[in-house]
Amino acid sequence: MFEPKFVAGLKTMFEEKVAFNQVIGLRIDALEADSVSGHIDMRPELFGHYAHQRLHGGVISAGLDAMGGLAVMVAIGVRHLDEPLAQRLQRFGKLGTIDLRVDYLRPAIGERFELRANVLRLGSRVATTHMEFIGADGKLLATGAAAYIVS
Amino acid sequence: MFEPKFVAGLKTMFEEKVAFNQVIGLRIDALEADSVSGHIDMRPELFGHYAHQRLHGGVISAGLDAMGGLAVMVAIGVRHLDEPLAQRLQRFGKLGTIDLRVDYLRPAIGERFELRANVLRLGSRVATTHMEFIGADGKLLATGAAAYIVS
Amino acid sequence: MFEPKFVAGLKTMFEEKVAFNQVIGLRIDALEADSVSGHIDMRPELFGHYAHQRLHGGVISAGLDAMGGLAVMVAIGVRHLDEPLAQRLQRFGKLGTIDLRVDYLRPAIGERFELRANVLRLGSRVATTHMEFIGADGKLLATGAAAYIVS
Amino acid sequence: MFEPKFVAGLKTMFEEKVAFNQVIGLRIDALEADSVSGHIDMRPELFGHYAHQRLHGGVISAGLDAMGGLAVMVAIGVRHLDEPLAQRLQRFGKLGTIDLRVDYLRPAIGERFELRANVLRLGSRVATTHMEFIGADGKLLATGAAAYIVS
Repeated sequence: MFEPKFVAGLKTMFEEKVAFNQVIGLRIDALEADSVSGHIDMRPELFGHYAHQRLHGGVISAGLDAMGGLAVMVAIGVRHLDEPLAQRLQRFGKLGTIDLRVDYLRPAIGERFELRANVLRLGSRVATTHMEFIGADGKLLATGAAAYIVS
Repeated sequence: MFEPKFVAGLKTMFEEKVAFNQVIGLRIDALEADSVSGHIDMRPELFGHYAHQRLHGGVISAGLDAMGGLAVMVAIGVRHLDEPLAQRLQRFGKLGTIDLRVDYLRPAIGERFELRANVLRLGSRVATTHMEFIGADGKLLATGAAAYIVS
Repeated sequence: MFEPKFVAGLKTMFEEKVAFNQVIGLRIDALEADSVSGHIDMRPELFGHYAHQRLHGGVISAGLDAMGGLAVMVAIGVRHLDEPLAQRLQRFGKLGTIDLRVDYLRPAIGERFELRANVLRLGSRVATTHMEFIGADGKLLATGAAAYIVS
Repeated sequence: MFEPKFVAGLKTMFEEKVAFNQVIGLRIDALEADSVSGHIDMRPELFGHYAHQRLHGGVISAGLDAMGGLAVMVAIGVRHLDEPLAQRLQRFGKLGTIDLRVDYLRPAIGERFELRANVLRLGSRVATTHMEFIGADGKLLATGAAAYIVS
């Protein structure tokens, strides 16, 4: 759907230029018109508790917030396919999280976690997303809901 | 209020053994019976966007979640002052975030950020907290609400 | 799955004895092991704004909270199928909402609204649910997330 | 601060024309530049559970959502003091709740409940509020956080 340059630009921006996404090791796997997916590989520095080897809840909230924003960004990209590439990518910097809710369902233990986000509604000023944080066995570990300002 | 060993033990556990708290540089400043405060110093790897030098929203959500948990932990510590030190510290590992909401009010730009959390209610099974993320000028940058399971 | 008397007892309790559910006209349509559905018929006294004939957001939050609680109650009922009827129904009174989030996606205009709730996780102390508020045309008007204390 | 006609117009609109506010018996007590307060008197039809004579959580969420919106409306009124009265009141109809979180702290039992809301931030497109639901004895029974679209 997107030209390879847009995808590459988005990946570079999201995975490298957003420094903290790099800290938590958040990588994009797939970009669809109204949903995105990615993953985080477990590393000891992401532990929330040394004894239990559980992922810190903050990695989950940070990852879900970032993925919700990415889903919105892609949906905006679809809406503005007529715009030049650079202009579409620049819209990323204007996106802001209004608020975020995370429900922690089960301990996040394992080697790799999958993150999914989809846009429930993209308005002209506000977008709302639903996010999921999933274990290697497919179990739902956490869910998220967030609102973003778009402009 | 607390014996120095409890405070030192809590600090070590929170700032060092919770690995991801070390990644975001979260440090404890004060521990009261039903409120706690701490800070995070800005570093480029915590940026959410390279161009704006803004703190990543995930650092805010991770920090507020951790501080809410700390406030609950301290309140539990007060309730169980009769228990031996090690037993009180062990309760920390049993604490779990049920859910978290963060409202992002203003861009988090600056060199140091203050975090505060207070316990709204400590029940026998669930605790609820209110959190604040504050800029160097005293401006409220984000607020949080969270529920924790205690046992 | 459930004996008719349990279903009838649950319906009476939910639709009539919970007085405010009667005020908003909330009716049960289906009860499954981990999901429930119901509906609310529009009435002028449920308007949030006279001019727009929109449902008040409070009817949505009240309805979603109640439906999430019902889904938990049914899941508890399944877990305790061995208990006498009266004892299972009594568990309803012990259920309490810890917190609730509602995302309002689109104006709720129309003659009838459908509400759905499903249990994401039923623990021994806390249950988490996801809820949806749907228009006559099948459009998602609002979503909800809630945590309940169960005992 | 406001001319009596604006206050009277706002009261009529909020307490009477928003039909569902009348159903829950929500009345305005005070209007300040960035905070408002009101109350709800207990009535049996607002019960969440007949046996416990507790207020239904939906009355709390509906009331807090409405009060947050009122606080935003008043803050907008202050910002547009130069506009004619009718135009300022008309802005009320354009306000929409983006999302709402309610934390239920203690059972709401009693004859009268006080509701307070204050604006944490009023932007050009989004406003964020904090709300409190208080018992006759001054105890905090529930807190709320909400985001509103303003235009």
